Amino acid sequence: MTPDVVALLRAELGDRVDTSPAALESARADKSGHASAGSPLAVVHAASVDDVRAVLRIATATRTPVVPRGAGTGLAGGANTGRGEISLSLRGMDRLVEVRPDDLLAVVEPGILNAELNALLEPHGVWWAPDPASRAISTVGGNIATGAGGLLCAKYGVVRDAVLGVDLVLADGRLLHLGHRSVKGVTGLDLTSLVIGSEGILGVVVGATLKLRRLVAGERVTLTALFDDVRTAAVASAAVTASGIQPAIMELMDATSLAAVHRLLSMPAPPAGAAQLTIQTDGPVAADEARAIAEVLRGAGGQVAVAVDDAEGETLLAVRRALHPAMETLGTTLIEDVSVPRSALPAMFDAIARIERRFGLNIPTVAHAGDGNLHPNFVFDGPDVPAVVWDAAEELFRAALDLGGTLTGEHGVGVLKRRWLADELGDDQWRLQRDIARVFDPLGILNPGKVFAI
Amino acid sequence: MTPDVVALLRAELGDRVDTSPAALESARADKSGHASAGSPLAVVHAASVDDVRAVLRIATATRTPVVPRGAGTGLAGGANTGRGEISLSLRGMDRLVEVRPDDLLAVVEPGILNAELNALLEPHGVWWAPDPASRAISTVGGNIATGAGGLLCAKYGVVRDAVLGVDLVLADGRLLHLGHRSVKGVTGLDLTSLVIGSEGILGVVVGATLKLRRLVAGERVTLTALFDDVRTAAVASAAVTASGIQPAIMELMDATSLAAVHRLLSMPAPPAGAAQLTIQTDGPVAADEARAIAEVLRGAGGQVAVAVDDAEGETLLAVRRALHPAMETLGTTLIEDVSVPRSALPAMFDAIARIERRFGLNIPTVAHAGDGNLHPNFVFDGPDVPAVVWDAAEELFRAALDLGGTLTGEHGVGVLKRRWLADELGDDQWRLQRDIARVFDPLGILNPGKVFAI
Repeated sequence: MTPDVVALLRAELGDRVDTSPAALESARADKSGHASAGSPLAVVHAASVDDVRAVLRIATATRTPVVPRGAGTGLAGGANTGRGEISLSLRGMDRLVEVRPDDLLAVVEPGILNAELNALLEPHGVWWAPDPASRAISTVGGNIATGAGGLLCAKYGVVRDAVLGVDLVLADGRLLHLGHRSVKGVTGLDLTSLVIGSEGILGVVVGATLKLRRLVAGERVTLTALFDDVRTAAVASAAVTASGIQPAIMELMDATSLAAVHRLLSMPAPPAGAAQLTIQTDGPVAADEARAIAEVLRGAGGQVAVAVDDAEGETLLAVRRALHPAMETLGTTLIEDVSVPRSALPAMFDAIARIERRFGLNIPTVAHAGDGNLHPNFVFDGPDVPAVVWDAAEELFRAALDLGGTLTGEHGVGVLKRRWLADELGDDQWRLQRDIARVFDPLGILNPGKVFAI
Repeated sequence: MTPDVVALLRAELGDRVDTSPAALESARADKSGHASAGSPLAVVHAASVDDVRAVLRIATATRTPVVPRGAGTGLAGGANTGRGEISLSLRGMDRLVEVRPDDLLAVVEPGILNAELNALLEPHGVWWAPDPASRAISTVGGNIATGAGGLLCAKYGVVRDAVLGVDLVLADGRLLHLGHRSVKGVTGLDLTSLVIGSEGILGVVVGATLKLRRLVAGERVTLTALFDDVRTAAVASAAVTASGIQPAIMELMDATSLAAVHRLLSMPAPPAGAAQLTIQTDGPVAADEARAIAEVLRGAGGQVAVAVDDAEGETLLAVRRALHPAMETLGTTLIEDVSVPRSALPAMFDAIARIERRFGLNIPTVAHAGDGNLHPNFVFDGPDVPAVVWDAAEELFRAALDLGGTLTGEHGVGVLKRRWLADELGDDQWRLQRDIARVFDPLGILNPGKVFAI
């Protein structure tokens, strides 16, 4: 059957069907460090909605699994494509179709990069708020498929708050237009929200109507605060949230993370054990807010430094942005992604410290402290995640759930977290969700084995 | 079978099962003006989650339809209960269970009134933003079930943006906990969003974790602008949106609405044909924003009056709030609820004028102009909607869809709009949505005949 599928694809899609060894190899993995067993049948570089529909019709006729793919920057293995599967790349469908600053909306194809989109929107005085750390290299379609987050979520929302509608190709090739162009709308079930974060198991997103914001007027003020230890920093960040002032960015780096970045950037080493908050305010009263936040931080034991201008602010933020390269200098990294209520941040850091001691691991952790989303990094040698790391991760997940949180704040379930999904959802909800997915895709053609592990 | 069901309910729920003629009669209708054929078997006043589960277990065992009900203030007939059905009232489950100002969340039972909740939240310095015009009399559970909107949506969002999780009892009595307490979370499919606006066809909402906001610091400034005609007012409101300034409230009243309210409130009659915008800004730069908006409005031909203080601001807003009583003085009202992109407001008012001429009707219309949601009011004599009104409404819906809008911005489909649902969704999406509902409720026990008319 295998050669038939490729022949069928080529007959319809010609040289957009790529079976070069390099393409097949790169489709096996995303940025999670995890790769599929075996190589896909082909990578199809879709250039149009019709291409996507053609691939899915062939896939349905031949019962061939299809794995949609943006730029391959995911961190949960959701786009990894293996033996007998078709990798369906949307990366080439990257047009900004329409911008309506008066209606605060834009229509895009899914392959456009988040940062490219925002560069095109800026002259219109608008932006799309979701800002995953990967925004320079990740696609809007991928951001939608994973329900991506970022640094600005507490103030400016997540992807779910920023999409009015999606065009979705179903497993059998039918095209649906979900949502609408108006701000409000409650006609029928909200399938747009259901598709956001569904990781390619319900359909292939081939277009999106995005909800935009005006560029934020006023200034930006950036400050850092150094604390004796991570717990004190976490308590301070919770105090900022509780004070009622809403920073645009509030990032926390623990001692190991901070020290690793300082080494990478050839900066003087921070004091032993010290953790840091990096905070940015914006808008018409940014300076007042920064002053008030600085007071809260000093009261919580922080050593505060305020950037004198935007350039210095960017330098302070660059420390946080260098986290992933810094982790890579330590070894292979499994980036975790739990999210908890903001007041539970100190308790979650306590849990991480317990897990470090219990398993004899070092788990450098950063957090989007403004919204309670933590990225504990498990660093190890070699390509494969050691069993002890999975055991520690499992305990980490349970701790987050016990605190009222969730397995994944912004990366998704993919392959890496599917074995814990039922722990969070409960068996009844897990089955209900799986049955909903089957309504969209009765044959199980779309991204099988992801999320629900079926 | 009928007496058996009531006996079974009484055996488990005692005097919370109400078969008094007054209770049965009032369960037939909501505030839409529409009533079900016949009377329900019983009204059950649930006092706990266990009560709800018991009702649904009995309903499933006896294949008896259940219609969930909050305060009965809906405008689409979604809670109307008829012959052979159980009306399941959640109104008595009205506790505020938990407030966490530090995490900006509250846990509530579904029967709490929106305004009651906000009165309880205010001392904590927080509020729940959804503000349907019915907020003094509508429940949070009903707001969630309909995906209610209100006056503040463009700036502060809709219900979908303000719910972190819901507890849902399925048709067979099983209880699911959907969502989480953290700001971020993308674990599995977003069933919380799917339940919002689902009008009781997926399950019964027995609890909700709400996303709160800090009370808005700073002042409020209210202004009105009078225009020669409704089209000029609509163009002016689009100009305000396009200017990039975000008012908290921007309401438009056409000439007939404005004149009717002035009569009701014994105010001097407005100039013939004149339409009015009522705008409120809030926050730290409210005064600057109001000044800038006033400039835009004057440039668009408006006669602007700015309230000198909050009390005068409330007086100006009271004119808009008196709309529904004013309509009632004219006859029976069918309140429509289309929503369009904001730039399409003038075109939508043109369409309404065309429909008025074509059908020989007067359709007084108000709009949440800040978000493009219009409420055209069909006023007629007698209890039943005349055929000509439905014909005109149908043309109104088509006009909204042609402009990229939707059938219902904030009231829901219920019984009144179900016959147009497939026109908006398309047959494929309509069937997909119906099949998703069947996954939740395979026997079709929950609110049958609503939304999908099956």
